[in-house]
Amino acid sequence: MIAHLISIGNELLIGDTVNTNASWLGQFLHNRGVQVTQVYTITDEPEQIKLTIQQALNKADLVISTGGLGPTLDDVTKKSIAELFDVDMRHEQSVEKHIKELFRRRNLPYSKSNQAQSLIPNNAELLFNASGTAPGMLFTVQDSLLVVLPGIPHEMEHLMTTQIAPRLQDWGSLNIFETRYLKVAGIGESDLIDNWLPNIKSSLNESINLAFLPSSGQVCLRLTGRGKSREEAMIRVHNLSFEIKQRLGNLIYSDEKEDTLDCALGRILTQYGYRLATAESCTGGLMGHMLTETPGSSVYVQGGVIAYNNAIKMSQLGVDASILDQKGAVSAEVALQMAKGVAERMGVECGISSTGVAGPGGGSPEKPIGTVWMGFFTPTQHFAVRAEFSNSRSINKLKSVITAFETLRRCLLGMDELPYNLQKVYPDSLEPVDKAQKGQSHTLSSGDSLNS
Amino acid sequence: MIAHLISIGNELLIGDTVNTNASWLGQFLHNRGVQVTQVYTITDEPEQIKLTIQQALNKADLVISTGGLGPTLDDVTKKSIAELFDVDMRHEQSVEKHIKELFRRRNLPYSKSNQAQSLIPNNAELLFNASGTAPGMLFTVQDSLLVVLPGIPHEMEHLMTTQIAPRLQDWGSLNIFETRYLKVAGIGESDLIDNWLPNIKSSLNESINLAFLPSSGQVCLRLTGRGKSREEAMIRVHNLSFEIKQRLGNLIYSDEKEDTLDCALGRILTQYGYRLATAESCTGGLMGHMLTETPGSSVYVQGGVIAYNNAIKMSQLGVDASILDQKGAVSAEVALQMAKGVAERMGVECGISSTGVAGPGGGSPEKPIGTVWMGFFTPTQHFAVRAEFSNSRSINKLKSVITAFETLRRCLLGMDELPYNLQKVYPDSLEPVDKAQKGQSHTLSSGDSLNS
Repeated sequence: MIAHLISIGNELLIGDTVNTNASWLGQFLHNRGVQVTQVYTITDEPEQIKLTIQQALNKADLVISTGGLGPTLDDVTKKSIAELFDVDMRHEQSVEKHIKELFRRRNLPYSKSNQAQSLIPNNAELLFNASGTAPGMLFTVQDSLLVVLPGIPHEMEHLMTTQIAPRLQDWGSLNIFETRYLKVAGIGESDLIDNWLPNIKSSLNESINLAFLPSSGQVCLRLTGRGKSREEAMIRVHNLSFEIKQRLGNLIYSDEKEDTLDCALGRILTQYGYRLATAESCTGGLMGHMLTETPGSSVYVQGGVIAYNNAIKMSQLGVDASILDQKGAVSAEVALQMAKGVAERMGVECGISSTGVAGPGGGSPEKPIGTVWMGFFTPTQHFAVRAEFSNSRSINKLKSVITAFETLRRCLLGMDELPYNLQKVYPDSLEPVDKAQKGQSHTLSSGDSLNS
Repeated sequence: MIAHLISIGNELLIGDTVNTNASWLGQFLHNRGVQVTQVYTITDEPEQIKLTIQQALNKADLVISTGGLGPTLDDVTKKSIAELFDVDMRHEQSVEKHIKELFRRRNLPYSKSNQAQSLIPNNAELLFNASGTAPGMLFTVQDSLLVVLPGIPHEMEHLMTTQIAPRLQDWGSLNIFETRYLKVAGIGESDLIDNWLPNIKSSLNESINLAFLPSSGQVCLRLTGRGKSREEAMIRVHNLSFEIKQRLGNLIYSDEKEDTLDCALGRILTQYGYRLATAESCTGGLMGHMLTETPGSSVYVQGGVIAYNNAIKMSQLGVDASILDQKGAVSAEVALQMAKGVAERMGVECGISSTGVAGPGGGSPEKPIGTVWMGFFTPTQHFAVRAEFSNSRSINKLKSVITAFETLRRCLLGMDELPYNLQKVYPDSLEPVDKAQKGQSHTLSSGDSLNS
């Protein structure tokens, strides 16, 4: 078991106090078979505290902080930790009762700042401090444990001896980890937690944990089991994985950490014997680039057209000039024609397209920056979807590609639900082009201004 | 002035020794107006030492390490620092003489491990230690100073008092920094240092520094000047910048940190009123993606064709079937036809193309993995270049794109020297297609297998 220590307090840095807590803890842990490999001595600044705790948790099984738990202004450890974990504080009655009793015996007035001593972050387990007013706290953070103790040496030593020492053996024996990853795309993190896995918390504890690792358009679920043996840890991970897979089904595109969405899509295309071509306006080549990052992708990737300018949409993809004129380049009709056009011209079964307002310029009230139409053409379906992403050009491009890949993946698997609950728009549901409306055509009709 | 302290030694972590050096240094520096904001106490492991020094140098003006300078096996600080800075050791005669004298007076035998005490990394300034055998060392690292001291308290205190205290005021007053960035592409870091800036070291000192920050296919030169005033720092940066620009000229594509090569190319295209189209095989869309990351790129980017499959090279770009058959997809002829074909079909002035063996499969002795042909078509030139990059698919794609952009940029500016000294191959210098050779055509004739 590897431990990191964090000593918090300016007094240690300017040399007013010698850091004896660190050496006491080093010896205490060393004698119990726990190896301290780093001590951080840092200032009482919330950002520094959060950063250091995060760093230490990434590297150590056990992190112990001391200091910054008093009732004065520069005691910010508790507040910083609540911010780090993004949780509220809860009131611990046993602590308040204990402090009131201490003050009564010492004949001191009980004030507001003393009351704050009985608050602890919601996700903390209380380590009751019989020797003082600042409670200790224990946090289970994914694979690691965080112990937060007051800096007053005899209080810290009391909590270590009475509360931590008895648990060390247990922790040491829960030291084998197993990890599994489940990957989904086109679902927001909060949607996943609130609607797909609403009661998953009740399945989690010190021995089995679930973390959500979001990236643009995707979430990777990391399941970590602890156990006394590899089997025990694996069974815990397996049970949780089974539960999650039952709820998410085919929404999980992979359970391999290094696997990517384009690979998952590629496997399905290969299975059906389909080849894919891309017609990209606002994504500018990113679809093709991401597809061709995977070795062997030439089995299912035929090629594509980057139709950044409207002239190219017409000459290389067969988009109608009248549609561009009446509906604008960012429209269902153009996305539909691009997807179908590229598939037909490249002689393949599937085509996908993108046309949108990538930003930062080119937005309008009707089609704000981040508006993207994606088109899909397969042997059985032809539809478009409309999404609104962000103000960032790069994020719009990336999210468009991820959403397009995931939409095609779900469509080929026969799933009804689309990413982000997007709705399919079919060619026949679009109103016929009415030449009388020409005068009211959208202000955005040039691909140039859209992508710029 | 912000200082970080690094205390090196397992004895501190297991609590055998209380870290009094850190509190002594904290007080000493605090009293002289230097603010210590972090102490790292770490093990005697080279990787940990390198990592921590690097971290501290990124955050502090002054970094002081103590410990690990003795002659025994677990004293690895000096070796770790030499590795970190990638420098050899040099022999300091004054130190050897001093140690021999100490040993003679104490009547002790002088051994090999003692001799190693007089070695210090090549880029170190010696801090002569009259109180012991381990010399102190001073390093100027970009914007920061690194002081390396022995861990024995009286030796450390002696060096701080006699060698560091007198310099602190100077350092504090050299506390204003100015930074400038000069960016180049298509030149290796060592080529830059050895051939373009061979004597630049003589222009550098504690007050003006030059760092080389390489990324795939590019190097960013960071010039950092220190001074007592902003003017003083700026003048130093300006003078060094002037000297470097005189030597590199138009090889510098930008002096803005956030500027990118595709923007620099875009400015030149815009200036000439040229538009660009891309024909990508092995880069799979990355050229288009990188060009369209820049807002406003629609002014000069028309579009492109991702011709991953040979059928697309023929149908969408007009590459001759006989050329593909005889020369293979990875050839000068195909790159030339792709570049010209995409420019003509998209009706623009400039076309660039890529066709290569991206890997990890598909290599042959004649065309190993990493072989890439790039084609260029402009109103005045039509040529191809051949490069050999690496075994990594992603790096091959990225380097191909950077090299193609830089080649076109230099070509439009009328520069003769191509990236990485690549040679232009013109259509008329290629031998005519001889049908009798058909039987000996290259084994690699299918685009599919090349990119897979």
